[in-house]
Amino acid sequence: MNYLEQRFSVQFNYKVFFTSDLFAESNKLLENFLAERKESGTEAKILFVLDEGLVTANPSIPQKIRNYFSNADSFQLVSDLIIVPGGEAAKNNNIYFNQILEAVHNHGIDRHSYLIAVGGGAVLDLAGYAAAVAHRGIKHIRVPGTVLSQNDSGVGVKNGINYFGKKNFLGSFVPPVAVFNDEQLLLSLDTRNWRSGISEAIKVALIKDADFFYWIEDNVAALKDRNLNVMNQLVKRCAELHLEHISGGDPFELGSSRPLDFGHWSAHKLEQLSQFTVLHGEAVAMGIALDTLYSAISGRLDGDKAQRIIQLIRDLGFEITHPLMQVKESGSPLLQGLEEFREHLGGRLTIMLLSDIGKGVEVNEMDPGLLEQAGEQLHAISGAGYSRKVTA
Amino acid sequence: MNYLEQRFSVQFNYKVFFTSDLFAESNKLLENFLAERKESGTEAKILFVLDEGLVTANPSIPQKIRNYFSNADSFQLVSDLIIVPGGEAAKNNNIYFNQILEAVHNHGIDRHSYLIAVGGGAVLDLAGYAAAVAHRGIKHIRVPGTVLSQNDSGVGVKNGINYFGKKNFLGSFVPPVAVFNDEQLLLSLDTRNWRSGISEAIKVALIKDADFFYWIEDNVAALKDRNLNVMNQLVKRCAELHLEHISGGDPFELGSSRPLDFGHWSAHKLEQLSQFTVLHGEAVAMGIALDTLYSAISGRLDGDKAQRIIQLIRDLGFEITHPLMQVKESGSPLLQGLEEFREHLGGRLTIMLLSDIGKGVEVNEMDPGLLEQAGEQLHAISGAGYSRKVTA
Repeated sequence: MNYLEQRFSVQFNYKVFFTSDLFAESNKLLENFLAERKESGTEAKILFVLDEGLVTANPSIPQKIRNYFSNADSFQLVSDLIIVPGGEAAKNNNIYFNQILEAVHNHGIDRHSYLIAVGGGAVLDLAGYAAAVAHRGIKHIRVPGTVLSQNDSGVGVKNGINYFGKKNFLGSFVPPVAVFNDEQLLLSLDTRNWRSGISEAIKVALIKDADFFYWIEDNVAALKDRNLNVMNQLVKRCAELHLEHISGGDPFELGSSRPLDFGHWSAHKLEQLSQFTVLHGEAVAMGIALDTLYSAISGRLDGDKAQRIIQLIRDLGFEITHPLMQVKESGSPLLQGLEEFREHLGGRLTIMLLSDIGKGVEVNEMDPGLLEQAGEQLHAISGAGYSRKVTA
Repeated sequence: MNYLEQRFSVQFNYKVFFTSDLFAESNKLLENFLAERKESGTEAKILFVLDEGLVTANPSIPQKIRNYFSNADSFQLVSDLIIVPGGEAAKNNNIYFNQILEAVHNHGIDRHSYLIAVGGGAVLDLAGYAAAVAHRGIKHIRVPGTVLSQNDSGVGVKNGINYFGKKNFLGSFVPPVAVFNDEQLLLSLDTRNWRSGISEAIKVALIKDADFFYWIEDNVAALKDRNLNVMNQLVKRCAELHLEHISGGDPFELGSSRPLDFGHWSAHKLEQLSQFTVLHGEAVAMGIALDTLYSAISGRLDGDKAQRIIQLIRDLGFEITHPLMQVKESGSPLLQGLEEFREHLGGRLTIMLLSDIGKGVEVNEMDPGLLEQAGEQLHAISGAGYSRKVTA
C-alpha cells in the first residue's frame, strides 16, 4: 500500500487557581499571570465576556475590572465589556456567539490576545467556543462564577453552544490557558445555585473516591449553612478529580466512554423537558438517584448503600425526582434521553453505574422494566418522606 | 499560590494514501479502511460533501460513489450527496456551512460517522470545519481533488471558513482521520489548476530541501507536459515535507512562527485584491518571487540563486508579478497584507525569507524601501522577458 503516515502529539497544560476577589486592585494573581506570559513585541488585548446574572448579583464587577486594568500598561483592555444572559439562553441563541465574534473582529483581537469569560457554565461554554474558533483559537481564560462551573465544567476542556435545539450540537475540545476560581463569587449565589453544583461532587465521589463521599456526608450541615471554607474544600477536591480524570483518560473523547456522565443521560433530558427550569445540578442529583437505584435493583449495588446515597442527596436539600422524570417501560419522554445520549456520544451506548460507593461500572444497556421500577421507587420515597427503606 | 495543575497530551495520527480511481468498485482501499475501523455495535453513516467544479469535470463521480457503497452493508451512505461550489465561494458564504450542519442534524450523523469531502482546498476547509465543530467533532476524511490540496492544504490539520470578509476568520486545528490522494482526479484539471499547486512544492523545497528544488528544475518539461507519474512524485514529496513540518514543529500553531507561509503574506493579499481571480497557487508563485528577490536585495541570498528561482517559476509558465502587486514604500494595498498577516498570526510579525536554496531564515520586519525595489525589479523582469539578469 502506498501511503505516508502522520503522527504527532500535542501537549496541553494549564493551571486552575484558587483565589479570593480576583479583580481587587491588591490581588496581583491575574496581572502577574498575564505579565509572565507576555511575549516581547506583542500587544495583548483583553476582551471580557460577562454573565448578566453574575453582574446583577455583583454590580461592582464591571468597574472593578476596568480599574484593575487601568494601570496595566502592557495590556489593552477592550473597554466595551460584553454582557450576555446566563444559563442556557446564552447557548440557545446564535446572536451572543456572533456578538463575541464581532467584538473579536472589530477590536483586532488576535491569537496573542485573551478572551476572559466570567460567569456560569453556559457563558463559559459559549465564550470558550467563540474563542476556540476565532482565528482558529484565541487564548481564553475562565473565571467560573458558580459552584457547578468552579468544580466541574469550568475546569475542563469542552465548550459549545446549542443548535437545532440540540444541546452542545456545536462545540470543540480546546483547553483554556488558565482557570481562576474566585471564592467571592460564590457568596452572591442564591440557595439553589449554591447547592446545585454539589451534585457533581457527589457524582465524582461515587464513581472515583469513597472517602470524598464520606467527607461530604460529614459536612452536610456546613454546606447547608453556606460555610465558604468547607465549600472551597469541596470545590477543590471535585475539580481535582475532574482534572485527573481528563488527563488520565481520553481528554478529547475520541472513544465512546464517558464515565463522568454518571447520572447525566436522564439529567440532560429532564433539563430539556422542564425547559431548563430545573438547574443542571438539580437534574444531576435526580439522575444520580435514578441510576443509583437502578444499580441496586439490577443487582450491582448493595441496597443499603443505595439508600445511603439517596439520603445524602436529600439531606442536602435536593429533590430526588420530578414529575417529568417518569420512566415507562412502554416508552416515555425521559427514556428518549437514553437514545439521544447514545447519539451524542456516537455509536454504542455506554452508561456508568455503581458497584459500590466510590466505584463505577460501565454497562452497554439498561433494562427499561427495571428502570421503571427504579423511577417508581424514587417517586414513592420522595412522597413517603425521609427514612423509607429502599427495597432492592 | 493555591492552584491545581492540568497537564496532558493528545496523540494524533492519520495516513495519507496514494491511489488511483478511489471509487472504482475494484478499489478496496477506502472500503477496507472503513471496515478496519468499524467498532462493533456502532452504525457508521457516511455523509459526502462534493466540490461542484470537481463534479462538473468528473460527472460520473456521484454515481460511482453510490455504487461503491451500495454493497457495503456495514455502512450507511447518506444518499443525498451535498454539492457545494468550489473555490473561495465555498468559504465566503455561511449557507454552505449551514447546509452541511443541517445534513448532520437531519441524518443523525454522530461521532462514529464519517464526513468525506471530495474537492479542492476550499471545499476541504469548509467541510473539515463543519466536521470539526458538529458534535464537537465528527471523523472526517479528505479526498483532495487538486494538485494544491493533494500536496499541501489537504494533508494538514487546518480548516476554516471566511467571515467578516477575513480569510479563515473561523476555523480550527483538527486532523482528518485519513487523506486519500486520487491521481485520477488530477487528470481532469485545467492547465491553470494543474500548474497552480506546483508553487507550494517550490516553496517547501526552497525552505527545506534543495535536492527537491533541483529535481523540480529537472522535471519542468514533464510537468508542463502533464506527465502524471512525475506529478505524483512531486505531490508525494511535497506532502511528505509538509507532514514532517507539522509533526516536527508546532502542529496547532501555538507560537508565532509560520515557516510554511514563505511567500504567503503578499499572496493572500493579492488573492483578495484580485477578488480571487488569481488562484492561490498562482499568487504564491508571485509571492515567492517577491520574497526571493527581497531576500537577495536585503543581502541574505546570492543574486544568481534568486535568478535561478525566478527562472524556474517562469519556466513552469507562472506569472511572477501582477498589476495589483505593486509595493510602494509610501503605502500600497499590498503592503497592508503584512499587517493583516501579523494580525492573523497574532503578535509579532514573523516572515520567512531565504538564505540559500533549501534554507529558510526568519525575520521580524521587512524594509518597505527594499520591498519596493524588489517589486519594481519583478515588474521589469516580467516585462523585459525571460533572461534578464537579476541585479542584487
